[in-house]
Amino acid sequence: MVEELLKEFYQGSKKAVARIITLIENEEPEGKEILKVLYKQSGRGYIVGITGPAGAGKSTLTDALVKLMRRRDYKVGVVAVDPTSPFTGGALLGDRVRMSDLTLDPGVFIRSMASRGHLGGLSWAARDALVVLDAFGCDYILVETVGAGQSQVDVAGVADTVVLVTVPGLGDDIQAAKAGIMEIGDIFVVNKADRGDAEQVVRYLENTLEQGTKTEGWLPPVLKTVAWRGEGVDKLLEAIEKHRSFLEQSGRLEPLRKMRLKEEIIERIEKLIFTRLIKEIHMEELIEQAYSRQLDPLSVAEMLVEEIIPPTGLAGKRIKLQGRACAK
Amino acid sequence: MVEELLKEFYQGSKKAVARIITLIENEEPEGKEILKVLYKQSGRGYIVGITGPAGAGKSTLTDALVKLMRRRDYKVGVVAVDPTSPFTGGALLGDRVRMSDLTLDPGVFIRSMASRGHLGGLSWAARDALVVLDAFGCDYILVETVGAGQSQVDVAGVADTVVLVTVPGLGDDIQAAKAGIMEIGDIFVVNKADRGDAEQVVRYLENTLEQGTKTEGWLPPVLKTVAWRGEGVDKLLEAIEKHRSFLEQSGRLEPLRKMRLKEEIIERIEKLIFTRLIKEIHMEELIEQAYSRQLDPLSVAEMLVEEIIPPTGLAGKRIKLQGRACAK
Repeated sequence: MVEELLKEFYQGSKKAVARIITLIENEEPEGKEILKVLYKQSGRGYIVGITGPAGAGKSTLTDALVKLMRRRDYKVGVVAVDPTSPFTGGALLGDRVRMSDLTLDPGVFIRSMASRGHLGGLSWAARDALVVLDAFGCDYILVETVGAGQSQVDVAGVADTVVLVTVPGLGDDIQAAKAGIMEIGDIFVVNKADRGDAEQVVRYLENTLEQGTKTEGWLPPVLKTVAWRGEGVDKLLEAIEKHRSFLEQSGRLEPLRKMRLKEEIIERIEKLIFTRLIKEIHMEELIEQAYSRQLDPLSVAEMLVEEIIPPTGLAGKRIKLQGRACAK
Repeated sequence: MVEELLKEFYQGSKKAVARIITLIENEEPEGKEILKVLYKQSGRGYIVGITGPAGAGKSTLTDALVKLMRRRDYKVGVVAVDPTSPFTGGALLGDRVRMSDLTLDPGVFIRSMASRGHLGGLSWAARDALVVLDAFGCDYILVETVGAGQSQVDVAGVADTVVLVTVPGLGDDIQAAKAGIMEIGDIFVVNKADRGDAEQVVRYLENTLEQGTKTEGWLPPVLKTVAWRGEGVDKLLEAIEKHRSFLEQSGRLEPLRKMRLKEEIIERIEKLIFTRLIKEIHMEELIEQAYSRQLDPLSVAEMLVEEIIPPTGLAGKRIKLQGRACAK
């Protein structure tokens, strides 16, 4: 099955892409196997994160951006991350039937995926889908995440360029809260700019950006768009390409991607260790002791870690490991 | 120094409390040492989380609640978590000089602490401060967190009762985004209820709550307050005490606290392992190989974990460990 699927994938079958992502989503072993193969063919696509609060019109903007990219003959993949409802478990925004005219285009692949948890973090499956689309030969892969908190931080961990979309009329309190995530943006977009106080939002963003920027040498532009009628989208693509050139020509793209790889590996290690801890350590007795105040939680954790990783350290192991890795 | 400080602490010195929390905040080894001692004297205080979006008036509400609790002769501790500015690193809300009439009261201890990261997660220091205040003999410990995302989830991980504060006029999009965090609330408060559409917000919350609740047998009440003039705050305290009785009498408080302890221990284990991974594993070569697509990140992580925890597992270690723990 894996071989057949990969064959279809290499022939450009969007159906194969969809099935592979589903395998990954369902945590099937075949998905993992395929991912390891496809990872080796990835690395050429450029990943753009599009994020911002609910109601900012990110879907419409993404839609318009994809259309423009198609006119320039780029192959485009889109991963749209929808928060799940805390009560029903279903997607908060319902089934996406949007962008239907694009789904017929063989040069566009669009996939809606559930967020991790209710706060909208990027699931592992969503991150892996980016690798699949990259290996599929997409020139640009857009990852669109809906607003609340964690997913916006996560998107900075996967995207080469992060577009932060906002909209007039969210109020000052909200602006202040949003300031907390401003540092992840490489490009700022005030969408629905035909509304009243768009200029004020632009000024607010520009003022805040003057106080500090994410990357030395790159002052994030603040653009205005009216996505539903395509206004300003060409400027957005221009800004994305400019940011990409900046990263490439200043030699920043490679270290940036390596840093992200390191973070990914560490996160994967944590996840694997966590899974094994949960499965293999029966902590009930220790918890009883912590609850009755005989032991404190920090001491319990320290004791357990000392058992897991002897204080003599990992240094010896490292050498062995590197030998193995190199021998591959 | 540790002994002297503990002596003053046991004599009821608020200055000693402040110094201990500072030691913990600065990650001094003395702080850790003291915390381990104080943990054993904790467990009697009741922890109430107060959270909600910026501008909802949480500080004013907390203030009013503390005053009411003092009239009932409760000893009260407050940990107010302020998000740090992403650009300056300083507290977003500036130094808190609020509640100055309360700070002179020997039965009230108030501490402002920085959030973890820009999204406002609860720092380890803030969680440890709760233990300190608990050991100090506070009957109630209020932990107040400002809005964006992570801290609201974190607060559910430390509080016995979570009060979710909202306010009229935040708009539908925001309400939808907030729905994602509604499941953490045991009590809902619509503050500034003298404003126009308070009734509408109450109805919205009640409708959403009908679709599912956090705890079986507890339908979270939706209260209206006008905190600045103390309106409705008595009903809030009543609701907190009712929720506490519910947890105690239904036998839910103990398993709830044990579950939180388990989560805390696992998080501490992860943090300790993470620190050691960062320090001891030199991943540069592996990252180069992942970057050049010779290896994929998942395989790298799997190999490293296999080295850290041999596949023969932790079962043998567990027995040894429990023996040690019990012998203590």
